[in-house]
Amino acid sequence: MPPRAASDRRQERETAAMNVLIVFAHHEPQSFNAAMKNLAVEEFEAQGHRVLVSDLYAMKWKAVADQDDFCSRANADYLVYALEQRHGYENETLAPDILAELEKLDWADLVIFNFPIYWFSMPAILKGWFDRVIVSGKCYGGMRFYDRGGLRGKKAMLALTIGGQQHMLTDGGIHGELDAMLRPILRGTLGYTGMTVLPPFVAWHVPYIEPEQRTELLDQYRRRLRQVDSLEPLRFPSMDDFDDMLHPLLRADAAPIGSAR
Amino acid sequence: MPPRAASDRRQERETAAMNVLIVFAHHEPQSFNAAMKNLAVEEFEAQGHRVLVSDLYAMKWKAVADQDDFCSRANADYLVYALEQRHGYENETLAPDILAELEKLDWADLVIFNFPIYWFSMPAILKGWFDRVIVSGKCYGGMRFYDRGGLRGKKAMLALTIGGQQHMLTDGGIHGELDAMLRPILRGTLGYTGMTVLPPFVAWHVPYIEPEQRTELLDQYRRRLRQVDSLEPLRFPSMDDFDDMLHPLLRADAAPIGSAR
Repeated sequence: MPPRAASDRRQERETAAMNVLIVFAHHEPQSFNAAMKNLAVEEFEAQGHRVLVSDLYAMKWKAVADQDDFCSRANADYLVYALEQRHGYENETLAPDILAELEKLDWADLVIFNFPIYWFSMPAILKGWFDRVIVSGKCYGGMRFYDRGGLRGKKAMLALTIGGQQHMLTDGGIHGELDAMLRPILRGTLGYTGMTVLPPFVAWHVPYIEPEQRTELLDQYRRRLRQVDSLEPLRFPSMDDFDDMLHPLLRADAAPIGSAR
Repeated sequence: MPPRAASDRRQERETAAMNVLIVFAHHEPQSFNAAMKNLAVEEFEAQGHRVLVSDLYAMKWKAVADQDDFCSRANADYLVYALEQRHGYENETLAPDILAELEKLDWADLVIFNFPIYWFSMPAILKGWFDRVIVSGKCYGGMRFYDRGGLRGKKAMLALTIGGQQHMLTDGGIHGELDAMLRPILRGTLGYTGMTVLPPFVAWHVPYIEPEQRTELLDQYRRRLRQVDSLEPLRFPSMDDFDDMLHPLLRADAAPIGSAR
C-alpha cells in the first residue's frame, strides 16, 4: 500500500476522532444496560474514538446535592445551591468528585447517558449527576442557555431501556409520546445547556424479551452508534427569538395582536 | 353552648379530618421551601388535620435504589429492582427506611411534595423517594395503573419553587408550559399510580423576589391549602379506554378507520 494513502487515511481518522463520555447508571453488571455500555465502548474504540465511562453505581456516586459539595462557601449561613456552584466553580472549591466529572465533560465531544427509565425519567443516581455536575456559572447562567448555553458544541444522546412497548408511548397511546415524557431532560436540561441533542435510542420492553430480541436490539444500537455524525438533532428555541426579559419578540411574519388568525 | 351542637361540630370536624403527609426536599432550614413546609404544618393542624413530615435532607434519605434496599433477595445473582420490590413487599423484607415511608403513605389521605425545581424536575433526593418507596406490587403492577392504580383514593399535590418567571413557562414562552415539563411527575408518576392529582402550587421567581412578595406568595399558598377539597383535579387516561394489550379501544363515537375526518 503506498505510504501516501496510508498517511491520508490516518489523517482522516485523526480528524474525525471524538472524545466520548458514557454516563452509565445501572446497578447490575449482567443487565441489558450494561451490555449496551460495553458495546458502545467497543464500537467507539474500534472506530478510533477515545472513550471514558462514568459508571455511577460502581463509583458510588453521591446523588444528593448538599453543603458537602463545596470545600469553601460564599455564604456559610444560608445555602443557595446555584450560588455556591458559581462560587465553587470560580474559586475551584467544588468537591473533588464534581471536579472530576466536569473535567470529563469538558473533554467530551459526545456524551451518552445510558440508563433504565424509572418513573418516565432517570434513576435518582443519574439525576444527582445533573444536579451536582451541570454547575451554574459554567454550563449555564445569566442569559446563557439554549443556543447560548455553556455546553454548546457538544453532542448528547440518551440510550435508554424501558419496560413498556412502543404503542403505549405514542400520540394516542396510553402514556402519550415518549419524547413528551422526556421533555425535562431533552429540552429542559440537555437543550437548555446548549448541547446538540440527538434523538434518544430506545430499547423497548427489555425486561420481557427473548435472547434473540436482545441480540437484535444490540445490533440496532450498534447501527445507531455508527450514525451519530449524520443524525438530525432535535430542535429547541433560539435565544434570538426572545428579548432580554425572555418575552417572545414580535416577528415581521407574526399575526398582529388582536388578529383573529 | 348546648352539648348537642358541640358534639355535632366535633363530629363534622372528625369526619373531615385528613391525614396529610408532606414530603419535603430542601437542604436549607431558612429557605422559602422550608417556610412553605412550616406554614402547611401549621395550617393543616389548625384545620384539625393530622400531619406528618418526611424531611428528606434531615432524615439523610438514601436516594439511590440498589441491592441494599432488600433484606432478602428473590434472586441474589441478578438484581431486577422492580421484581425485588415485589418480593420484598410480599415478604416484608424491604429495607426499614422504605417500610417506614410506605407506612406513612398508607396512612395519608393527601400527600404534598414540597421541593425546589432542579432541571425542570425534582432534586435527586426526592426522585430517590419515588424510585425506592413507590414499590411495584403495592403501588402499581400488572394492569393496575391510572384509574386502577394501587394508590387510588389518595390526593397528591406538588408545592414547588422555581427560579423562572411565569411568562417563560407558558405556551409560546421560551420553555413552553410548566405542566408539560412536569408531565413525568404529574401523569407518569402520580397519575400512573392512581392518585387524584391537584394542580401544582407554583411559587415563581423565588430566588429573586423581595420580602413583601415572599409574604404574598405564602398567603397565596395558605389560600391554596384551604382549597384542597374543592380543587378540580388533573385528568388522565382511563384504563377502560384500552384493551388488555393497552391498545386504544375503538369507540362507537370514533371516526371509522380510513375516514378522512
